[in-house]
Amino acid sequence: MASEVFSKQKTIYLRKKHIGPSCKVFFSHDPIKIVRAKGQYMYNEKNEQYLDCINNVAHVGHSHPEVVSAGAKQMELLNTNSRFLHDNLVQYAQRLQATLPEKLSVCYFVNSGSEANDLALRLAWQYTGHKDIITLDNAYHGHVSSLINISPYKFHQLAQPEHSQHVHAPSPDIYRGKYREDHPDPATAYADDVKDIIEKAHAKGCKIAAFIAESLQSCGGQVIPPVGYFQKVAQHVRKAGGIFIADEVQVGFGRVGTHFWAFQLQGEDFIPDIVTMGKPIGNGHPMSCVVTTREVAESFMSSGMDYFNTFGGNPVSCAIGLAVLDVIEKEDLQGNALRVGGYLTELLKKLKERHPLIGDIRGRGLFVGVELVKDWIKRTPATAEAQDVIYRLKDQRILLSADGPHRNVLKFKPPMCFSTADADLAVEKIDQILTGIKF
Amino acid sequence: MASEVFSKQKTIYLRKKHIGPSCKVFFSHDPIKIVRAKGQYMYNEKNEQYLDCINNVAHVGHSHPEVVSAGAKQMELLNTNSRFLHDNLVQYAQRLQATLPEKLSVCYFVNSGSEANDLALRLAWQYTGHKDIITLDNAYHGHVSSLINISPYKFHQLAQPEHSQHVHAPSPDIYRGKYREDHPDPATAYADDVKDIIEKAHAKGCKIAAFIAESLQSCGGQVIPPVGYFQKVAQHVRKAGGIFIADEVQVGFGRVGTHFWAFQLQGEDFIPDIVTMGKPIGNGHPMSCVVTTREVAESFMSSGMDYFNTFGGNPVSCAIGLAVLDVIEKEDLQGNALRVGGYLTELLKKLKERHPLIGDIRGRGLFVGVELVKDWIKRTPATAEAQDVIYRLKDQRILLSADGPHRNVLKFKPPMCFSTADADLAVEKIDQILTGIKF
Repeated sequence: MASEVFSKQKTIYLRKKHIGPSCKVFFSHDPIKIVRAKGQYMYNEKNEQYLDCINNVAHVGHSHPEVVSAGAKQMELLNTNSRFLHDNLVQYAQRLQATLPEKLSVCYFVNSGSEANDLALRLAWQYTGHKDIITLDNAYHGHVSSLINISPYKFHQLAQPEHSQHVHAPSPDIYRGKYREDHPDPATAYADDVKDIIEKAHAKGCKIAAFIAESLQSCGGQVIPPVGYFQKVAQHVRKAGGIFIADEVQVGFGRVGTHFWAFQLQGEDFIPDIVTMGKPIGNGHPMSCVVTTREVAESFMSSGMDYFNTFGGNPVSCAIGLAVLDVIEKEDLQGNALRVGGYLTELLKKLKERHPLIGDIRGRGLFVGVELVKDWIKRTPATAEAQDVIYRLKDQRILLSADGPHRNVLKFKPPMCFSTADADLAVEKIDQILTGIKF
Repeated sequence: MASEVFSKQKTIYLRKKHIGPSCKVFFSHDPIKIVRAKGQYMYNEKNEQYLDCINNVAHVGHSHPEVVSAGAKQMELLNTNSRFLHDNLVQYAQRLQATLPEKLSVCYFVNSGSEANDLALRLAWQYTGHKDIITLDNAYHGHVSSLINISPYKFHQLAQPEHSQHVHAPSPDIYRGKYREDHPDPATAYADDVKDIIEKAHAKGCKIAAFIAESLQSCGGQVIPPVGYFQKVAQHVRKAGGIFIADEVQVGFGRVGTHFWAFQLQGEDFIPDIVTMGKPIGNGHPMSCVVTTREVAESFMSSGMDYFNTFGGNPVSCAIGLAVLDVIEKEDLQGNALRVGGYLTELLKKLKERHPLIGDIRGRGLFVGVELVKDWIKRTPATAEAQDVIYRLKDQRILLSADGPHRNVLKFKPPMCFSTADADLAVEKIDQILTGIKF
């Protein structure tokens, strides 16, 4: 068992003293100290076990032995930059490419989802010669300055919100959005809004470089865009000389169960111009990737400016990335996401029949949202109740989070080894808590 | 010995096919394939040994066993985000703080020098309420879009250079710059230029958020600012309501020998408002850090926007960071940098007496520049000759690079375990090559 260096009180004291106060902990009233983790379980300093329903970064399970071993072995041998030739880099690029449509064949390896999305913008700006970016309402694409601008999720937190220079399209949320489940064709309706935005931008002399969206909006509230939406948006955006960036940082690598990439849920006729990857890619190791077409990559090179990323694509990161792909395959984690995700969604749907606080259950594979509302007609967000559920679950040693613009959507995005027994336990506890909550 | 997956030809073929063409290799005519490394030596696929004089990331030596072991052990135990309490995070912050002036007490852990410098700009913008950044000519601060803007080193590569919105002060280079070694007080003269720039910016209605500079300019040509320059610049910048950002990404962690941080070469009376760290911090592991004052950190929090970095400050990165600090101390690598760096500089100075191609030798510890010129009076850059030397050294299995705005400065920045025997060998080979070059 892992031992503590400091008492929990001392850890909290030192954290307050030396770590930026903008860096928040989970459960700030009584944060958790975690000393070890394995699979879908985390353990605190008293060796008490928590079921992890939220850690989509520990994709193949916390501290997976094959991933750890691949990383350790390569660290012993060599960890240097990509200015030297190395087989891990090209082998990994080849393996990633094989999961994608053939057109998406050129990789840039970087260190974080933020670096990936920032590079995607740079590629779009250079390729199109245009400047403006269309982003979705409630979107979050990263923490570097260029991405805060296109992340309404973040800049709406500002005490004095500034106006972003970029435009936001409505989130294609058929539960709470502009066009809902009763609309005959929400995909076209939401895409037409993007078309209108482009026309208005053109009227102001703006030129669209890209449309960027998560393939499924996560921080934005576990939103699943209607099928066909991306195809229609891509058509409008490309007609305006822009390109389509699919952000798979949170939702890629088999999580949706039926497909390896969440954008593939839209159908085989949809191919983005750029795909960005992150979080699960290295099971916690800091790495990420941008994949694009040959045309976009050649155009980026034609600017004359080299691209060098000190750590990006180093042999250790690539060894770890290869091991993650191996484990997903060997342990059929995509299949597990489909099976267990389906099972979890069914359990939650049954729960909805008995608990009016649950307004909507939506999910694909092990990406599931439970939207809590005060009433089913007005759909008033049950924000305080969601927080209450999360804290009570924590007391039961189940880690879940609430997100979305109203912080009322319970988010399941567990390690991909999550089992039906885990689903049973989590739903049973939610059931007990909802039964106990008074309205 | 490490084995190859692909032949070198195949590696090159796959790299062309799948890796962004803007990502350049060293020695593009005949790149090197490296399969393992240890200390200051790297080995190709034929097990031929190269002396590494350039890899400042492998700070305590390639694949240092203590660093590898610390990383592997922690990977086995836990690798999660900083929303949970963990002792490694606070212990590491405490240890880093102890190397710095007391005022610099608040850390933000991120994944790369680029993320660190971008965050430094966000801190400066929020704290000052101003927008404009003063950067140095030939500066390089990172590859994300906000930093390309303040990196003349990069945007001068553009086929069609755009104008940056930020202003550049002359590089305080007393060999090739505006004020040279014969100037009575170059520190004040260069700082007065910054003062002028501020006054001109004010006249245009601009407001200075920050001055950012590497404590010693590296890509910019191994430039060592005259002592007192930073104090005077800080005075002017703070008077204008801005702050001082010292970029230690390339030059920190004891490399300069006499001090742990290169900004400390300016004297104890100089304290930056923000210090950014990177490359050597994790001996190749993707991590970096921003350290600032309580005031700046509190102001950043007051914006209302959280700061969350998925991988930043994870227990594995912090375990590795702690191990690097331990090794620097245990093996007295700062002392070694002072001794071997001094020895190397002396050898090079003797070489200068016999080779007119060498215009200047400048260095601090194991950060040394050898500027090649066609003549000592006009100081015409010997760019082609520098490239020639680099390629010939490579044939002798010595890895050195040439940089600076004219690509004529040979850059020594080896792993810190570099020995006097290594220095002897490198200088002997340079001597032989310079003796053979015809003018």
